[in-house]
Amino acid sequence: MTKTNPGRFFEDYRIGQVIRHATPRTVAEGERALYHALYPARHALYSSDEFAVNCGLEGSPMDDLIAFHTVFGKTVPDISLNAIANLGYAEGRWLHPVWPGDTLRAESQVIGLKENSNGKSGVVWVRTRGLNQMDLPVLEYVRWVMVRKADPDAPAPEAVVPDLARVVHPDDLIIPEELDFSDYDFELAGEPHAWDDYQVGEVIDHVDGVTVEEAEHMLATRLWQNTAKVHFDATAREDGRRLIYGGHVISMARALSFNGLANAQMMVALNGGAHANPCFAGDTIRAWSEVLDKADTDAPGIGAIRLRLVAHKGAAGDHALLTPEGKYAPDVLLDLDYWALIPK
Amino acid sequence: MTKTNPGRFFEDYRIGQVIRHATPRTVAEGERALYHALYPARHALYSSDEFAVNCGLEGSPMDDLIAFHTVFGKTVPDISLNAIANLGYAEGRWLHPVWPGDTLRAESQVIGLKENSNGKSGVVWVRTRGLNQMDLPVLEYVRWVMVRKADPDAPAPEAVVPDLARVVHPDDLIIPEELDFSDYDFELAGEPHAWDDYQVGEVIDHVDGVTVEEAEHMLATRLWQNTAKVHFDATAREDGRRLIYGGHVISMARALSFNGLANAQMMVALNGGAHANPCFAGDTIRAWSEVLDKADTDAPGIGAIRLRLVAHKGAAGDHALLTPEGKYAPDVLLDLDYWALIPK
Amino acid sequence: MTKTNPGRFFEDYRIGQVIRHATPRTVAEGERALYHALYPARHALYSSDEFAVNCGLEGSPMDDLIAFHTVFGKTVPDISLNAIANLGYAEGRWLHPVWPGDTLRAESQVIGLKENSNGKSGVVWVRTRGLNQMDLPVLEYVRWVMVRKADPDAPAPEAVVPDLARVVHPDDLIIPEELDFSDYDFELAGEPHAWDDYQVGEVIDHVDGVTVEEAEHMLATRLWQNTAKVHFDATAREDGRRLIYGGHVISMARALSFNGLANAQMMVALNGGAHANPCFAGDTIRAWSEVLDKADTDAPGIGAIRLRLVAHKGAAGDHALLTPEGKYAPDVLLDLDYWALIPK
Repeated sequence: MTKTNPGRFFEDYRIGQVIRHATPRTVAEGERALYHALYPARHALYSSDEFAVNCGLEGSPMDDLIAFHTVFGKTVPDISLNAIANLGYAEGRWLHPVWPGDTLRAESQVIGLKENSNGKSGVVWVRTRGLNQMDLPVLEYVRWVMVRKADPDAPAPEAVVPDLARVVHPDDLIIPEELDFSDYDFELAGEPHAWDDYQVGEVIDHVDGVTVEEAEHMLATRLWQNTAKVHFDATAREDGRRLIYGGHVISMARALSFNGLANAQMMVALNGGAHANPCFAGDTIRAWSEVLDKADTDAPGIGAIRLRLVAHKGAAGDHALLTPEGKYAPDVLLDLDYWALIPK
Repeated sequence: MTKTNPGRFFEDYRIGQVIRHATPRTVAEGERALYHALYPARHALYSSDEFAVNCGLEGSPMDDLIAFHTVFGKTVPDISLNAIANLGYAEGRWLHPVWPGDTLRAESQVIGLKENSNGKSGVVWVRTRGLNQMDLPVLEYVRWVMVRKADPDAPAPEAVVPDLARVVHPDDLIIPEELDFSDYDFELAGEPHAWDDYQVGEVIDHVDGVTVEEAEHMLATRLWQNTAKVHFDATAREDGRRLIYGGHVISMARALSFNGLANAQMMVALNGGAHANPCFAGDTIRAWSEVLDKADTDAPGIGAIRLRLVAHKGAAGDHALLTPEGKYAPDVLLDLDYWALIPK
Repeated sequence: MTKTNPGRFFEDYRIGQVIRHATPRTVAEGERALYHALYPARHALYSSDEFAVNCGLEGSPMDDLIAFHTVFGKTVPDISLNAIANLGYAEGRWLHPVWPGDTLRAESQVIGLKENSNGKSGVVWVRTRGLNQMDLPVLEYVRWVMVRKADPDAPAPEAVVPDLARVVHPDDLIIPEELDFSDYDFELAGEPHAWDDYQVGEVIDHVDGVTVEEAEHMLATRLWQNTAKVHFDATAREDGRRLIYGGHVISMARALSFNGLANAQMMVALNGGAHANPCFAGDTIRAWSEVLDKADTDAPGIGAIRLRLVAHKGAAGDHALLTPEGKYAPDVLLDLDYWALIPK
C-alpha cells in the first residue's frame, strides 16, 4: 500500500461527513511581513498596530485573507487534490480576528453531492470552518468543486444540492466587538472617502497594475501550505505553465483596491466568487470595484459596503466583464463579491 | 470625481506646507528576516541580538535602511507619484533606533520650489521626518524631485531654493545614547579592521556581486509600501522593463560593503546620493567604497567614518565613476555619501 | 593590504585549529515564516505551536534545517570560500532545539588534512558546532571539502584522515528531554503511518515536484548568510548559470518527503550526504525515500527511523540512483542519510 496521499475521489464523500484537516499552523509577525512583501497591501488596520489600537483593537489582526488562505490551504489535500475545477464560494463570513501567534486548523463538512451526467465526476459542496487554538471559529465558508471519480462504476449517491444564500444578509455580518471607527483617522488611512461617499452602482478603477512572477506566487501558495501540484510543478501541465493559485489573485486585487477603497478596511463576508480565467506568470493584474450595496450597522462609526471586486489582465481601464454570450471576458481573472466594513 | 489618488502636481505644493503621509506601519521580526533574505546583510549589530546587547543596546535594532525605506515609501503617493526624476538627498540623519514592534509614520514639509524654464515641471524640495509610535523622530532627510505640472498655465511660484549642507557635520551626528563599542568583538563581527585602520582616500572593492531578479525587487519595494507604478507594472514603460526601486540598489550595495567594511556597523547620516543610472532585473550589482573622511566621537570606543558607496553593474573591479565629460559612467547605478559608526 | 576576505587556502589550515566563525544570527518568527514560503514544509511539529505543546515542547522549535543552514552559512567564509567541492558530511547530530529568538553562532575545528597528489589542492575535514546564546551546542557535524592552495609550493602537511562513523549509532541520538509522542494526533499530523508501519527496505515516492526559480534559491541562501559567489553572481560561471546552494535542495526534498513521511517529525542525525549533481533554476525537484534502518528509543512513544532521502530532477517515479558504472545517475541531485524521530 502506498503511504502517500492519493486524495479523495467523488465516491469517497458522504453527506454529513466531517473532515478534520491536517497541518495546524501558527501565524505571526513573519506571515504578516510576507503578506506585505507579496501584495501591495496598505489598509492601515493591518499595517499599523497603533492604527488598530485607535480603532479599538488590541493591535493589528492578521489580514483577513491570511486567515482565508491558511484555512483554504488546509482543505486542499482532502477536498481539491483530485478536483477538476473550483466552482464557487458562498456564505463566507469572518467570525473572529486572527491575532499574531494564533494557531489555525480547519474542518469541513460535506453538505452537497451531485454526480455529473457523464458519470465520471461529480460536484462536492463543503462547509469549511477555520478554528483557532481555543477552538473558536474564525472563518466559515461554503465551497464547491468538481471532483473526479476513481472508479467510473461507483454508484451515484443521492443528489443533494444545498440551498445557499446568494448574499450574506447584512444582519448576519459579524463585527468584532471592540471595533470602533468613531475616531478614525482618514488622513493616516490614506483617503477621505467614507461610507456616505460611496453610491450603489459606482465603479472605481484601482489604476495600478502588478506583473506577477513565478517565484512570488509559489512563495505565497507554499506559505498557505496549499499543495496543489499545478501551482508548483512546471511539468504537470502539457503547456509547461504553472497555474497561479486563485487566492493569489484575490489578495493581489484586494490590495490593489486600496487605491479608491482605502477605508474598506475589514472583509467580513464572502458572498461569492469565480476564478473566471487562469492566471499565469507574466500577466499584469489590474482591478476595479463596483459598489453593489450598502448597509448600516449598530457598531460605532461603522458602515458595511458590498463590493464586486474584478481582477483582469487586460489594458488599464478595461472594465469588460462579460462577453455578448454572457460568459466572462477572456481577460477577466476574478469576480469576487464581498462585504467590507468602512467608517461612516 | 475619481476616488483614486492622482498624486500631487508641481502647482499643488506650497512653501511651508506640511504633508502627513498615510499608511503607518509596524515593523518587526518578519521585516528583519525578509531584509536578510533580500540582501546579503551581515553587519552583526543587526544580525544578532546578543551582539547588539554586547554593544550596549537592548537588542538588535531594525536595519537603518529598513527605517529609511519605510519612511521613504510613505512619501511616494504624496511626493513622487508624478515625479519625473528623483534628484537628490541631503541632510539625512538617523535620530533614534527603530526597534522590532515600532510603528513608523512620516511627515514632509515643503522647503523649496522652483519651476523649470520649460514651464512644464518644477523641482520640489521636502524635508521628511519618520516618527515612531511615541512621536519621536527616528529619521530625517531632505529630498528633491522634479514633478510634472498638471496645468502648464498654472503660474510659477516664487522660487525658493533651500541652502543645504553638502555634508552633515560630525558634531551633528546622533549616536544612540547607550551605544558602546568598548567591548566590541571583532572576530564575531567578521573583520579586524577598526577606525584607525582606514585612511581617507582609501578605496575598498567589495568583491562580491549579486544578479537581481524581478521577484526580489518587487518583494522589497512592496514591503516598504512604495507604490510607484514603474517598479511593478511591466506595461508602464515602452520597453516593457520594470525599473528597480533605487533603494533596492542602496540596500544591496550597503550589504555587499560588508566585505571590507564589516565594522561600519551603523548608518548615522546620509550626506547625499544619486541614482546615476537605472537598474533592471538581470543586472549584476557590485560595489566599492571610498573613505571620504573620518571623525572622532565622544562615545565609548566609537569613531565615525564618511564613506562614498558606489554600486555599478560593470565587471568586477571596474571603479570608473565619471566619464571624461564629468557625467556618471554608464555602468554606475548609485553614488551614495554617508557617515557610519565604527569601533576604534 | 586588501581589507576584503580572501578566504582560507589549503595551506592555511592546521590540525587542531579552532575557527570561531563570524556573524552570529538571531532567528525568530520571521525566519519560520520564510521557511514555509520557501519550502512546502508541513511537518506539524514545526508548523503549529499547539501541536508542539501537545508533544511536550514549549512551542514549535525552528525547523532543524534552519539550524543546519544557519550554522553552515557561518562557516562558508572560513571553510569553503576557496573550495572546489563539498565532499561529504558525517557524524551530524542535532543536540538541542532552537527556539524563536535564539541567537546562533558557529565554531569549527580542523580534524583532518590531506594534500591531493596534484599538489594544487587538498582535503580539509572540520567538525563544526552551532551554539546558542547560552553557549549550549545545538548542532554538530563533520564536513570535508576540497580546497585550493594559494601557493602550489607550500609544503604538504602530514596527512591526517579522521576515522568517521559511517552512521550515527542509535544510542547516540539526542532526543529533546520533554519530547513525548504518547498523545500524538495522527489526524492533525496528516498521515496514519507510525514507526511500526515502516519496513526496512521500503521505498516511498513522495509524488510532488517543485520547479525552482532563481529568486527563491537566492532568497533562501541569503537568509542563511551563505556568501558563496556562485549562488548569486550570474557572471561567476562561464555558462552564466547560478549554482543552487545544496542546502536548498536538502530543504526542498525534506519538505516534499512529508507526503509519505508526515510523521518523521524531527531530524536528529545526519549520517552522510552527497550533492550528486548541480541543481539550476528551472529544474523540477522530486524526491523519494528508502527506509534504511529502525531503532527503538526509551522516550515516550518515540521511535527512530533511518532514511535515505534522494532528490532528483528526472521524471516522476524515476528512482534510478546509480549508473551501471556505480556513479550517481545524472538526474540525481542529493543522496542524504539521516535519522528522524517518529511516533510509535
